[in-house]
Amino acid sequence: MKTRGRLTKKIVLPAGFSFSAACAGIKASGRPDLALVEAAPGTTAAAMFTKNRVVAAPLEVGRAALSESRGRVRALIVNSGNANCATGTPGILAAQKVCRELGQLLHVPTSQVFPSSTGIIGVPLPVNKVVACLAELSAKRAATEQGIGNFAHAIMTTDTRPKLAGATFRAGNSTVKLQGIAKGAGMIHPQLATMLVYLFTDVAAAPAELRRALQKGCDQTFNCISIDGDTSTNDTVLLLASGQSGIPLKKAWEPFSAALLGVCQSLAGQIIADGEGVQHVVRLHVEQARSGEEARQVARTVAHSLLVKTAWAGADPNWGRILAAVGRSGVAIDPARVSIFIGDQMVCRDGVAHEFSEKRAHNALSQPTSEIRIRLGRGHDSVVFLTTDLTAEYVRINADYST
Amino acid sequence: MKTRGRLTKKIVLPAGFSFSAACAGIKASGRPDLALVEAAPGTTAAAMFTKNRVVAAPLEVGRAALSESRGRVRALIVNSGNANCATGTPGILAAQKVCRELGQLLHVPTSQVFPSSTGIIGVPLPVNKVVACLAELSAKRAATEQGIGNFAHAIMTTDTRPKLAGATFRAGNSTVKLQGIAKGAGMIHPQLATMLVYLFTDVAAAPAELRRALQKGCDQTFNCISIDGDTSTNDTVLLLASGQSGIPLKKAWEPFSAALLGVCQSLAGQIIADGEGVQHVVRLHVEQARSGEEARQVARTVAHSLLVKTAWAGADPNWGRILAAVGRSGVAIDPARVSIFIGDQMVCRDGVAHEFSEKRAHNALSQPTSEIRIRLGRGHDSVVFLTTDLTAEYVRINADYST
Repeated sequence: MKTRGRLTKKIVLPAGFSFSAACAGIKASGRPDLALVEAAPGTTAAAMFTKNRVVAAPLEVGRAALSESRGRVRALIVNSGNANCATGTPGILAAQKVCRELGQLLHVPTSQVFPSSTGIIGVPLPVNKVVACLAELSAKRAATEQGIGNFAHAIMTTDTRPKLAGATFRAGNSTVKLQGIAKGAGMIHPQLATMLVYLFTDVAAAPAELRRALQKGCDQTFNCISIDGDTSTNDTVLLLASGQSGIPLKKAWEPFSAALLGVCQSLAGQIIADGEGVQHVVRLHVEQARSGEEARQVARTVAHSLLVKTAWAGADPNWGRILAAVGRSGVAIDPARVSIFIGDQMVCRDGVAHEFSEKRAHNALSQPTSEIRIRLGRGHDSVVFLTTDLTAEYVRINADYST
Repeated sequence: MKTRGRLTKKIVLPAGFSFSAACAGIKASGRPDLALVEAAPGTTAAAMFTKNRVVAAPLEVGRAALSESRGRVRALIVNSGNANCATGTPGILAAQKVCRELGQLLHVPTSQVFPSSTGIIGVPLPVNKVVACLAELSAKRAATEQGIGNFAHAIMTTDTRPKLAGATFRAGNSTVKLQGIAKGAGMIHPQLATMLVYLFTDVAAAPAELRRALQKGCDQTFNCISIDGDTSTNDTVLLLASGQSGIPLKKAWEPFSAALLGVCQSLAGQIIADGEGVQHVVRLHVEQARSGEEARQVARTVAHSLLVKTAWAGADPNWGRILAAVGRSGVAIDPARVSIFIGDQMVCRDGVAHEFSEKRAHNALSQPTSEIRIRLGRGHDSVVFLTTDLTAEYVRINADYST
């Protein structure tokens, strides 16, 4: 089959999905807090979940449903404003009830309804508010750009803007579409963290194929970003494939993988840029590591260092803090082989100060996105890690969340 | 030998030490930045250093000196305002020059001069300013409370107050004294971090005995505190014993250990309470762990969680963030066995919300020091970990340090 280059824009409309959103009254603000997607019969699914040992009820219910349905999903129901986490058996029963009620309404098996929640931990889900809103949600469904936009708004918590990315490519006589919708902000960390990402495509694929594509896409994107190092209890990435384009994934593996990577990269970047209180995004290149995992370990330690992150908030080219973080990363680095670059300037060479223009480095760090490069002098593996500064605004947002 | 209960106060004067401080012009502010202790002939020493792979020049020089002198120290020279770290061979030569010049001045071997530095990383030590000030420092030496106070002030960086703790106990016909002086603030983390601690006693002890006592004292105190999780390149704890009381350590091991623990506990508490931008100190009790290391691992993860620390800044009893941090600690906890207490109230029982008064919990977290207890339901080991909230003030201090 012949395939042609992909086109990326914010919203595309993959065939086989309809979207809606409503105000169920979970958020005290009265903003939209419930969102629905209905998927065409035969839609297949793959999902990835948080690695936190504390796992929210909807994830347990969703994981069991995917297993029971053997990777089939007909509906996705997401609420914001409440994580339904640390809510014990009542939390599980609440998530199950939402799925059962929605299944009955849409005439699909309960095991093909996939639930998600995001918001505060430890507060019972107001399940009756959710259930009371399902008929309205179902009635409003639309396979339109507006429907997708409404869905993206309703899953937001402290996000300041919706996160959308779409891609299309030609395959044979058809066009394959892929739409991504995400929420992030705060708690963003490798291994997925209060991040909900939904990917909708009209390619035709078996669940196992989808899983392989999703794993690959996540490793290079969502598992390489961090705002504060906290992994959430609710993180979920879900990929649904309606098959309505008539194009089988195995005949379009490469363009589909490229489209998926592009969409995931875009969403990861949007999540980071909209992190709580973020002023500056930093692309952290860790190079000359002995393995990818070693590079990620150094990147994580630097990206989570409070002293490094606060220096970035002041656009302060304090490379000593970066070097100190590399030194305590647990990787057996030799400081005398480590070099550090801020923007286009080398600031530390073989572990020692290298003359540079502080003004130019300060300017580089004052940009919305800046590049920092750390060379370990140990091997040939590298990683690009997306992270942020830590601002007083982040502290203000998080010091006043539940009370 | 009969020993009697110890007395704790801020300043005691162990026999065999004289103290002084001066302004060498390293700090741009013109505040005192150079401090000296001269110790009587025969003084023995033990030291502990940072575990960061990036190690400042004075630590390398000091470690080599202790080894060459077989644990003998006659002088301690400390500068603040410059860490002499990531300064390469010139940094080593600078630290060696300071020791050599001071040794000549005091007529003691270079290998018995112990150097320390604290301050910014990656800037060459202004060694000539240090050397030019040594004669003044030497002339000013005094075995007085004033001398000790001056020393404590001169080693400060972003500390807002000097940190002092002393203890005495009677042994036989003599009194043994132990004086501790520390600097901390920011970057405080287990395994020692920009923390300088000097302990002076007039007990008589072999270096190996001192090392054993020091290790034990540190494990329960300085290795159980954290402000921001960053371990410094310069952390040092040094214990000097002049022997001038005439009391051998082996005949007073228990009262000495108790005095040392008391002084270290006091200094650790003072360091935490004076952490950068700290409003609230939290005593984090992690209980029912399978091992002490497991308890510390959970405590560290909770103590370093930005979301937990910012919640504490707002005195917000958001126990869900604590539970989520426990869940990602790497310890294989079962959330259904975890309980959390804030102050005297249980707020989470077996992984689920437990009814409590938010007002009372908020009040408990509003105190200068509050108690949080995490029960893992796995075993019988526990740890008490001292940590702090994370305030917007911390971010301000650290966003504007070097520039």
